[in-house]
Amino acid sequence: MINDLIVTPLDIISTLNGDVLHGMKNNSKGFVSFGEVYFSEIKPKTVKAWKRHRKMTLNLVVPIGEIKFVMFDDRETSDVNFHEVIISRENYCRLTIPPMIWVGFEGLSRNNSIVLNIASIPHDPGEVDRKNLDEIDFNWEI
Amino acid sequence: MINDLIVTPLDIISTLNGDVLHGMKNNSKGFVSFGEVYFSEIKPKTVKAWKRHRKMTLNLVVPIGEIKFVMFDDRETSDVNFHEVIISRENYCRLTIPPMIWVGFEGLSRNNSIVLNIASIPHDPGEVDRKNLDEIDFNWEI
Repeated sequence: MINDLIVTPLDIISTLNGDVLHGMKNNSKGFVSFGEVYFSEIKPKTVKAWKRHRKMTLNLVVPIGEIKFVMFDDRETSDVNFHEVIISRENYCRLTIPPMIWVGFEGLSRNNSIVLNIASIPHDPGEVDRKNLDEIDFNWEI
Repeated sequence: MINDLIVTPLDIISTLNGDVLHGMKNNSKGFVSFGEVYFSEIKPKTVKAWKRHRKMTLNLVVPIGEIKFVMFDDRETSDVNFHEVIISRENYCRLTIPPMIWVGFEGLSRNNSIVLNIASIPHDPGEVDRKNLDEIDFNWEI
């Protein structure tokens, strides 16, 4: 596993008129601080990649659809370079991504998928690095 | 309007492979503190009602579907008793509900709707009051 990457299983509570899905508490594993929450939607068979946050810790939850996240770690401290996680209701988890990890994600379900990011700092374009899809060698099998 | 209830329009940013939907920042109007985020799903033509939080401020966002929220205010300070808000992507807003307001909500879309609550404190059953649907006289038109 990439150092400091955390995958935390979360509860889904069934109730008569609709489920309740846990996200994150202020004492949860992986919580650093509260900067912002926002959603990012991903269309089927499309990829959003690559992005690296220099300061933000991401905490990602997928309440709708199914998303493959691919992390690429080119830090010198790293034991492995790539890690893949598929998250959906069937594997309902929170994915904590520390700063300085490259991330990309792909929509796997037939309809749009949606990810909630509970971000440790508010959006700041100055702390984001980007690379084109083909600048990191990964076979997305799209 | 019920005192201290806030409806804040939010941005949806279109991008090629899927929209980005704003939620809340740590300096947003209505932000008190970060306790917990969780989702609550609501099935079509069903109602979850009534609930009142004694301590929690709710901040509600609807990324999927369409939900009618009904607030009932029986505080002595109140000018009006009922307020209705319908939230969806078409009217993409954050609804801030202060403590001591009764809340119910109904799923209006054909499929399940989902609401994100950015709650000022973590879940605590001891600060929640409940009433049955018929204990507050409101015509849900289900």
